[in-house]
Amino acid sequence: MLRYLTSGESHGKSLLAILDGMPAGLHVDKAGIDNELRRRMLGYGRGKRMAIESDKMQVLSGLRRSVTIGSPIALKVDNADSSIDSLPVVLNPRPGHADLIGALKYGLGDVRSVLERASARETVARVGVGAICKQLLDEFGIRIASHVIVIGGIAAETRKLPFSRIVQQAEKSPVRCADRVASELMCIEIDNASGERDTLGGAFEVIVKGVPPGLGSYAQWDRRLDALLSRAVMSIQAIKGVSFGSGFEVAILRGSKVHDEIFYSRNKGFFRKTNNAGGLEGGMTNGEDIVLQAAMKPIATLRKPLASVNIRTKESIKATVERSDVCAVPAAGIVAESAVAIEVANAMIEKFGGDSVAEMKRNYDGYLKQLRKI
Amino acid sequence: MLRYLTSGESHGKSLLAILDGMPAGLHVDKAGIDNELRRRMLGYGRGKRMAIESDKMQVLSGLRRSVTIGSPIALKVDNADSSIDSLPVVLNPRPGHADLIGALKYGLGDVRSVLERASARETVARVGVGAICKQLLDEFGIRIASHVIVIGGIAAETRKLPFSRIVQQAEKSPVRCADRVASELMCIEIDNASGERDTLGGAFEVIVKGVPPGLGSYAQWDRRLDALLSRAVMSIQAIKGVSFGSGFEVAILRGSKVHDEIFYSRNKGFFRKTNNAGGLEGGMTNGEDIVLQAAMKPIATLRKPLASVNIRTKESIKATVERSDVCAVPAAGIVAESAVAIEVANAMIEKFGGDSVAEMKRNYDGYLKQLRKI
Amino acid sequence: MLRYLTSGESHGKSLLAILDGMPAGLHVDKAGIDNELRRRMLGYGRGKRMAIESDKMQVLSGLRRSVTIGSPIALKVDNADSSIDSLPVVLNPRPGHADLIGALKYGLGDVRSVLERASARETVARVGVGAICKQLLDEFGIRIASHVIVIGGIAAETRKLPFSRIVQQAEKSPVRCADRVASELMCIEIDNASGERDTLGGAFEVIVKGVPPGLGSYAQWDRRLDALLSRAVMSIQAIKGVSFGSGFEVAILRGSKVHDEIFYSRNKGFFRKTNNAGGLEGGMTNGEDIVLQAAMKPIATLRKPLASVNIRTKESIKATVERSDVCAVPAAGIVAESAVAIEVANAMIEKFGGDSVAEMKRNYDGYLKQLRKI
Amino acid sequence: MLRYLTSGESHGKSLLAILDGMPAGLHVDKAGIDNELRRRMLGYGRGKRMAIESDKMQVLSGLRRSVTIGSPIALKVDNADSSIDSLPVVLNPRPGHADLIGALKYGLGDVRSVLERASARETVARVGVGAICKQLLDEFGIRIASHVIVIGGIAAETRKLPFSRIVQQAEKSPVRCADRVASELMCIEIDNASGERDTLGGAFEVIVKGVPPGLGSYAQWDRRLDALLSRAVMSIQAIKGVSFGSGFEVAILRGSKVHDEIFYSRNKGFFRKTNNAGGLEGGMTNGEDIVLQAAMKPIATLRKPLASVNIRTKESIKATVERSDVCAVPAAGIVAESAVAIEVANAMIEKFGGDSVAEMKRNYDGYLKQLRKI
Repeated sequence: MLRYLTSGESHGKSLLAILDGMPAGLHVDKAGIDNELRRRMLGYGRGKRMAIESDKMQVLSGLRRSVTIGSPIALKVDNADSSIDSLPVVLNPRPGHADLIGALKYGLGDVRSVLERASARETVARVGVGAICKQLLDEFGIRIASHVIVIGGIAAETRKLPFSRIVQQAEKSPVRCADRVASELMCIEIDNASGERDTLGGAFEVIVKGVPPGLGSYAQWDRRLDALLSRAVMSIQAIKGVSFGSGFEVAILRGSKVHDEIFYSRNKGFFRKTNNAGGLEGGMTNGEDIVLQAAMKPIATLRKPLASVNIRTKESIKATVERSDVCAVPAAGIVAESAVAIEVANAMIEKFGGDSVAEMKRNYDGYLKQLRKI
Repeated sequence: MLRYLTSGESHGKSLLAILDGMPAGLHVDKAGIDNELRRRMLGYGRGKRMAIESDKMQVLSGLRRSVTIGSPIALKVDNADSSIDSLPVVLNPRPGHADLIGALKYGLGDVRSVLERASARETVARVGVGAICKQLLDEFGIRIASHVIVIGGIAAETRKLPFSRIVQQAEKSPVRCADRVASELMCIEIDNASGERDTLGGAFEVIVKGVPPGLGSYAQWDRRLDALLSRAVMSIQAIKGVSFGSGFEVAILRGSKVHDEIFYSRNKGFFRKTNNAGGLEGGMTNGEDIVLQAAMKPIATLRKPLASVNIRTKESIKATVERSDVCAVPAAGIVAESAVAIEVANAMIEKFGGDSVAEMKRNYDGYLKQLRKI
Repeated sequence: MLRYLTSGESHGKSLLAILDGMPAGLHVDKAGIDNELRRRMLGYGRGKRMAIESDKMQVLSGLRRSVTIGSPIALKVDNADSSIDSLPVVLNPRPGHADLIGALKYGLGDVRSVLERASARETVARVGVGAICKQLLDEFGIRIASHVIVIGGIAAETRKLPFSRIVQQAEKSPVRCADRVASELMCIEIDNASGERDTLGGAFEVIVKGVPPGLGSYAQWDRRLDALLSRAVMSIQAIKGVSFGSGFEVAILRGSKVHDEIFYSRNKGFFRKTNNAGGLEGGMTNGEDIVLQAAMKPIATLRKPLASVNIRTKESIKATVERSDVCAVPAAGIVAESAVAIEVANAMIEKFGGDSVAEMKRNYDGYLKQLRKI
Repeated sequence: MLRYLTSGESHGKSLLAILDGMPAGLHVDKAGIDNELRRRMLGYGRGKRMAIESDKMQVLSGLRRSVTIGSPIALKVDNADSSIDSLPVVLNPRPGHADLIGALKYGLGDVRSVLERASARETVARVGVGAICKQLLDEFGIRIASHVIVIGGIAAETRKLPFSRIVQQAEKSPVRCADRVASELMCIEIDNASGERDTLGGAFEVIVKGVPPGLGSYAQWDRRLDALLSRAVMSIQAIKGVSFGSGFEVAILRGSKVHDEIFYSRNKGFFRKTNNAGGLEGGMTNGEDIVLQAAMKPIATLRKPLASVNIRTKESIKATVERSDVCAVPAAGIVAESAVAIEVANAMIEKFGGDSVAEMKRNYDGYLKQLRKI
């Protein structure tokens, strides 16, 4: 079983994670981790913070000569600005953030003590964990990608694009959108919102290719992989909705248009010609791509600040302006890739056991043969 | 900490649940549990199964003279039809169900052994657990309701209705829809789909009223209450999407239109005039109603069956017709009320500790006073 | 991952368990389960309760034609006496039981509401779960036995007996002691204690034969198998100590006399000539028998009752006499077999994954080959 | 709920821990943490490693101006020697260590990759976590101490000493033994063993003073505090036995001599005159001191090495000599203080909820009043 905990504040010394349960024998490519951190920082519409941080991941344990040995893996990224102790008191909570409620819940007189941890800066640690999980999945030919499908009302049309094109075009787009026209319109919309000192949300899609059928289970409610993926993605800061395959459209379609008919061929085994289920039936992967969407609310820190209340004096006041991204949807997609990678890696380890990559592969190969023999 | 496991098959002897962690001193109203089971069976568009089962919950442990004593609570509903051992082999998996993948994963040569557990009949046990959690929440003035907002493309308009009206009108509607006109159209749409031997999905909303601010936490990814609620609701059979507050609409709105500004008055303390966040900020309740939506795919068993493959011969064939609901969205809403009740009850117990209801209330009252003093 | 919850009170309707995570394809022998329940009730020195209960386990879910299908398994034993609601109030807590503290903790005014769940009657459910785990382990040639090594100061000498003799002789002895002379002395000691209206404790040993090397892990504190076994056995009512192999004797021996030297032969692979470690090194099985001891305190209900205090009036008074076993050490050994079986089965499932017994065996065989190749 | 993960290897860069779930508002005394690390390194019979490491804990997250803010706390100690990548291959596994089995389990060709994590160096991280938990417990007047009761056959006599004397004398003794005469004999025994290039084990006791009644629960097997304490202490490297109160002596005593009779006075409430139960009845604290013992096997690395087998050539050979402590029982006691502190802190947080120390205290005070009113 994979487990991980993250820690760290936005202006604390470091962001950290400990990941327990990775099999031995995985060569960890540190440059690959840093590349994920870099992908997380990109995106048209990001603010100054991204410019001052150039995150490099330190791997403090769990590797010997760059290979996992079964030990827990510790990851650390130091903050360039670690002034948490000296930063001024914040009394004006920002609507849409944890600010007010965190102060009430934890009995804190300074919103600063809340926003430091509630900040999406935490996702640096999660992306590190996810990067290693991606490298494990890569051993099994499983690949994960994300692309932006909506920003501020501009929707992309990508349904007919194959996985490889989506990956390629999303990586090129400044907003990680695989539809070139939409990509340009999204940038314009970001400029417009920025000009009005407002912010934008959007939606992205995560796709997992090459996953075997039978991960997850319907046997108990909390073992369904769609439920676990949903928890993982919804736990990302500012995410307000998660859906699979055709998503909320299933609410308006008839059964005959939704369910993916089953076919069989000698070469492919069982297969589908459609994937409205998003690769998940009965809480399990069905061998098709996992496809999930998530909706992200607009950045809650506006340069044109919203009405708030001073938590000490109770006077009406404008919310604090803490930072100034206009839109972080592309970055959220990268974080979601990690969140998804961790869950899929965990499901693989649960199904194929294996204390080492070699053992896991042996068990995996045995399962693939079993599938052929049914 | 609340924990529960359910068990039972669709045509097995019984559906069961064990719920661990309920505080002592709660008077459990058995009629209240049975009422929830009854609500779960209703809904225009349900099939014959609902007619033969009239579920009554037996409470086999955890109570003394109807009051909890800190012991785990065991719940059991017997199936009227418990012919699991003699039912015929099923070889034609239904697209959209766990059928095919379950057989592959567990190495089963008979789809029957899959569909018996994967069936939504399991939710009887969950509704039982949820009913008890609702009774605990009731001690704190917390109430949970659901109503259907879409069936087969017919959308309800309920934004301006207060909680009490939504509850009242949903309970009266044959499809649990609080918009009377939409309710009628939904019934017609169900008749139409039925006539074409097709099925319908839809969407519903769950609302939690009276929840204090500060349940859940941003401190660690898996402690966010929105993530936990999302896992719980997504784990319900056929759910493909979950969202909070304004949901996927946040993808198209600007920040200034989304975030709920903060106000203060002596009487109410901190409050909001809008609730686009659906009562959750930073993974915590903010004191406003929790509002979540979920999308349900159409029933996967069609009387006009879809293309499938015989798992033994590999021949193309039509899927098995196992049962014949046309639409189960109203029932799914009831199940989701339970899933939500369990998570909120767990969050209450985690925050207010308390081995007894009296202790929990004492701690809760202390917290309410603390909130006033900030 | 195996998980289970038990429920039920001593004079409630039933004792129950739900076991989640058993692989599909295991033929469950119901007579084998009942045999374990019968073994649990035996033992010289047991009281009247054992005479009135002749427990039969009902399997309410998880099986189809006696074979597991991947679903959770529900077990139920009905109590012959289920008068919990009408039994009289108990105000005189028994020293050594949960009585007083349970009443304080849960805010209960009647000790009856505590002792009903705290009673060792609960172990019926655990023995049922353990019986199924034993049947899974049996598929891998793993066998578990227990024997009593001390009762009331009478110690058995069994170090030189092989596993098969210990099993055989313990099953024959009225106190489950494999040393015939000690067995007789123990019975006499029980009669003596009974004559003085006193009670006796003792110690037993659990042995697991045929376990592969490498279950458990040193990688994280809570993954060590000795720690998990310790938790499982210490959680049995009245157990006050747990040890492995040479146990507390390691405190007085030198390293050269304690550690089991390592040898190798073509036939056996790596092996030991001694087993002071009790089969566990670094929190992992080392391929030798797992050997653990546990100490059980004397039954806390004495017919010659101890000083206590009426919880309502606070007057000094004698403790309630609730039942009258003199010694339950042999039964505790049976319960511990189950507790151990569950942990070992879980460790097997974790290491070899496998949603079905066939898959698990394939992965297990692959691992055995890997061990030979090192 | 408190959770923690540790990571780090003996010659890796750092030892780390992330602790999740500490309430806000605790002033963390860093010198207090370092003092615990210092206590862990002391003890007559330790080797050279202790001389080169002078551990200082860095707190990388979770504090603001030395006060907890509800965020996870990250701890780090850097190793003076972090040459893990360049250290030579080890092929001769040491009996009694994880060496051989770890290599088999994880498919590692070099025992070095096992011993680096399996080493008791890991306990640095656990002692850091425990030190913070001790500081939380201190807010409630709960104190934890340990003292050595056996080394190499020399037993201490401390039954009549009060807690304060045990603490005082153990801190002065070079082997942390509160019996002055035994302390001297233990040192001599260590010298003797050292002269013969052998090693020694022993036993220690951990005492927790000031704990309220009602922590832990009998309601479910894995909620019993004695079971949880047992898991925590047994998970410490080289521990082979754990017992409570009178421990294994209960096997030879009659019930009338074991169970602690119950008394009541206006001032004290319910109390006992004896504590054979070690403060735990029915899996719950009973308000008396928690008293537990643990047996530690002798150090497994002997300068007079044991027989082993080269894992590559399979030739008989002597085990590797990796380091050279003769006896580490005093240090193990310190580690066990931490393991116990974490479990007790977790039980306090579970019972009293509380996101802040202030809230936890308010709830705690309410419970104390409830206890008086029964």
